[in-house]
Amino acid sequence: MANARPDQRLNKKIYESRVPALREQLVQLQVRLKEAPCKVLLIFAGEEAGGRGEVINTLSGWLDPRGFETVAFRQPSDEERERPLMWRFWRCLPANGRLGIFAGSWYTELLRAQATDTPKSSEVARHYERIRHFEKLLSDNGTLIIKVWLHLSKTDQRIRLAELAANPDTAWRVTDAARRQHRLHDRLSRSATRLRQATDRPGAPWTVIDAADPRQRNLEVANLIIKKLAAHLTRIEATPPTPPRAVPPKSLKPAGLARLLALPLDQKLSSVEYEAKREKWLGRLHLATRAAQAAKRSIVFVFEGWDAAGKGGAIRRLTSAIDAQDYRVIPVAKPTDEEKAHHYLWRFWRHVPRAGLVSIYDRSWYGRVLVERLEGFCTEPEWRRAFGEIDDFEKQLTDHGTIVVKFWMQISREEQLRRFREREETTYKRHKINAEDWRNRRKWAAYEIAVGDMLALTDTPAAPWHLIPANNKRHARLQILKTAAKAIEEALGL
Amino acid sequence: MANARPDQRLNKKIYESRVPALREQLVQLQVRLKEAPCKVLLIFAGEEAGGRGEVINTLSGWLDPRGFETVAFRQPSDEERERPLMWRFWRCLPANGRLGIFAGSWYTELLRAQATDTPKSSEVARHYERIRHFEKLLSDNGTLIIKVWLHLSKTDQRIRLAELAANPDTAWRVTDAARRQHRLHDRLSRSATRLRQATDRPGAPWTVIDAADPRQRNLEVANLIIKKLAAHLTRIEATPPTPPRAVPPKSLKPAGLARLLALPLDQKLSSVEYEAKREKWLGRLHLATRAAQAAKRSIVFVFEGWDAAGKGGAIRRLTSAIDAQDYRVIPVAKPTDEEKAHHYLWRFWRHVPRAGLVSIYDRSWYGRVLVERLEGFCTEPEWRRAFGEIDDFEKQLTDHGTIVVKFWMQISREEQLRRFREREETTYKRHKINAEDWRNRRKWAAYEIAVGDMLALTDTPAAPWHLIPANNKRHARLQILKTAAKAIEEALGL
Repeated sequence: MANARPDQRLNKKIYESRVPALREQLVQLQVRLKEAPCKVLLIFAGEEAGGRGEVINTLSGWLDPRGFETVAFRQPSDEERERPLMWRFWRCLPANGRLGIFAGSWYTELLRAQATDTPKSSEVARHYERIRHFEKLLSDNGTLIIKVWLHLSKTDQRIRLAELAANPDTAWRVTDAARRQHRLHDRLSRSATRLRQATDRPGAPWTVIDAADPRQRNLEVANLIIKKLAAHLTRIEATPPTPPRAVPPKSLKPAGLARLLALPLDQKLSSVEYEAKREKWLGRLHLATRAAQAAKRSIVFVFEGWDAAGKGGAIRRLTSAIDAQDYRVIPVAKPTDEEKAHHYLWRFWRHVPRAGLVSIYDRSWYGRVLVERLEGFCTEPEWRRAFGEIDDFEKQLTDHGTIVVKFWMQISREEQLRRFREREETTYKRHKINAEDWRNRRKWAAYEIAVGDMLALTDTPAAPWHLIPANNKRHARLQILKTAAKAIEEALGL
Repeated sequence: MANARPDQRLNKKIYESRVPALREQLVQLQVRLKEAPCKVLLIFAGEEAGGRGEVINTLSGWLDPRGFETVAFRQPSDEERERPLMWRFWRCLPANGRLGIFAGSWYTELLRAQATDTPKSSEVARHYERIRHFEKLLSDNGTLIIKVWLHLSKTDQRIRLAELAANPDTAWRVTDAARRQHRLHDRLSRSATRLRQATDRPGAPWTVIDAADPRQRNLEVANLIIKKLAAHLTRIEATPPTPPRAVPPKSLKPAGLARLLALPLDQKLSSVEYEAKREKWLGRLHLATRAAQAAKRSIVFVFEGWDAAGKGGAIRRLTSAIDAQDYRVIPVAKPTDEEKAHHYLWRFWRHVPRAGLVSIYDRSWYGRVLVERLEGFCTEPEWRRAFGEIDDFEKQLTDHGTIVVKFWMQISREEQLRRFREREETTYKRHKINAEDWRNRRKWAAYEIAVGDMLALTDTPAAPWHLIPANNKRHARLQILKTAAKAIEEALGL
């Protein structure tokens, strides 16, 4: 585009005459957004002096402040550094019905690195991949992602910097770093182009807006938001909500079901033998978790299994080897309304442990491909996507150094019946059983198929499934202690 | 109490025969707790080697892990250090229906300080005061606080340390620090006694349990919890929930109402004059917030006022002076279900800004003494207590260095009517007005009384109320910019 010297710019009067209509449209769209089951991310990046801050301040003045939040990212805090890279972005996502303006984002660090040194291309590629996954996950979930690149040619940048420097109110913005970026304009522009190409995807496309004329730029940004948001809301509003409908599942990958059914369930273990071995493995597990803590490696345990398979009891035995201050049991029940206003993985990201600590998920994100799949609480595309999203989530954990240990506790249908009856007869266990448990039990075969698919599709080298035969409680508990200790020892190279 | 040498201790068989009944009672109480509108804090402290970790691990094995969480406090993270001291405890409070086991607590730092050096007695006294306030606030809100001191006499401590050292599995626990604490036993015991005396209050009493015999100790802890929790639940269950009932208020302190009514509302300000002065004060405010940020001082703005008083517009003008990355507008609407499961201040503590950042509350904790008082959403004792709790909350902010600036935007009843009608006639403002606004308007006189009490009872030197006449929007906005700039400048000594 042509350089926009001050005398070629949009006239202030014309600009001001156009603003009220844009504001009205923006606020009207915010009203519609408030009721919609989706959120909007507005991500700004661009050349130095492109006016990211000005655009955001202008938009903030136009939008209803109740419906948006501006998010910035400075140096990661220690709580953030102790978690996988994307944790800090997950925690800042707006809830459904809201708009998040990202002054900084998952692009900021990358752009900063490109401006100050030359990051390894393999690292850059990995970062692109991470971003594409994240944005796809959000966009698949209905999030509208608007990415705006505020572009300044080298000449326009020179003009803008000179203008800023000439005004005593803004001169402070023309820092040495800004001048350096101006000198490097061409190289930075080229890497920015590559970055945009690598991360321009359906559902998360970049829009480049020429930022040479600040007023024109503001109008273009507002028009872009209006156009995209209106189209998005119209599409969402036209989609009728799908009422939950239980669907009899078909196996996606029968190998998992076969593995499940082949598991021998009726091991014997005398209580004497159990107690002797338990002490040994509790000790090993204790030492392993202490070693993990010393190495600042955190641990995530996932407990899944049939109702009454003995998850609670197994967790209690496991935790008895860990200092109570170092672990946290996360019981996963129905999501809260804050959790429902987010992607289903959000509530698990929330509880990702800090360095050296242990999170034990009593049920987990696998609910998406088990109960939610079977009861129709999510759509088929949603639970189908979940397999990949979960793999990616767990990979982020393990890439960060977190040790992920997943258990499926398997009992026979007859054993479950025996335990249900026992629970009903034991006063202090009666609260553990309700009508829903009996209802789920009737769908045993359907659940088996879903469990099989889960085992087949989310069994990764970094986060494999451990199948635990659990008809014999002692045997199951011992095997869990043993598996946990060995998994941690192996991860630590002990 | 008598020393409990190993041969004098409770027999293992007897111990094990008593456990099942205790477990059953504990789990039954957890079932009742789950439905109760209250939470339980179980706080452990005590002499070195008293077995805090063992007790917590034992309890963890007995309780249903879905209903409790163990909380520990290590070195504060940077996110924690940048907020008032108690922020880290607020964020770890369990939700209603749950039990929080505090392995560390607001006592930990104090006890550690007493063990390693001699903290100033004025500081200790202030810390005691802070703790008493916090525990009173929680207990007033229905929280059951059980504080257990696991006591070991010097002789018993020697015996326990020798036992730990003799066992290869536990020898690591006998650290130099532990030996040092043993040498200092008498002095530490004396300061611990003072600490317990200073913080033993109705609603938050200490119970000292002799920890010389570990089995006996475990039983006593469990029995204590059972006794206290049963009594607490019985009391709570016997209290029928109070349905909301709007109550015509009587003024508690008429001076506030008089101040409100004496405010002249109809200032004039030409748009030319406004624009000239606005630029000046926006500049001052901009520089002031930047100076605050450089000094790592955070700022909390509170906007309260009648419906249609112009809070949104004033906030937009205010924020135009601040970099969008540095502020966050917190719109306060109905609490979410997670927020409802906590003390009403919890949801405001959540958003206390990090060092150098700005939180703008669009409505605030004052809802407790305004809408909640008038509509009967809380009981009279609750809103009466709120005045003091709010003062205390704001004092914690200002003591920490946070600059608190509170605005009440005052308009006349006639002006409100004019604005309501205008809103109904303007398309893009129509969403701002609903039946509830008209309902509240009918209670104008009642709200005036509540506002008056609020102004009179929460106007503190560190966090004074700024009354803003707001019939004239320009005048109001300008005065807010001016007041904000001056308040920050003054706090910074500029």
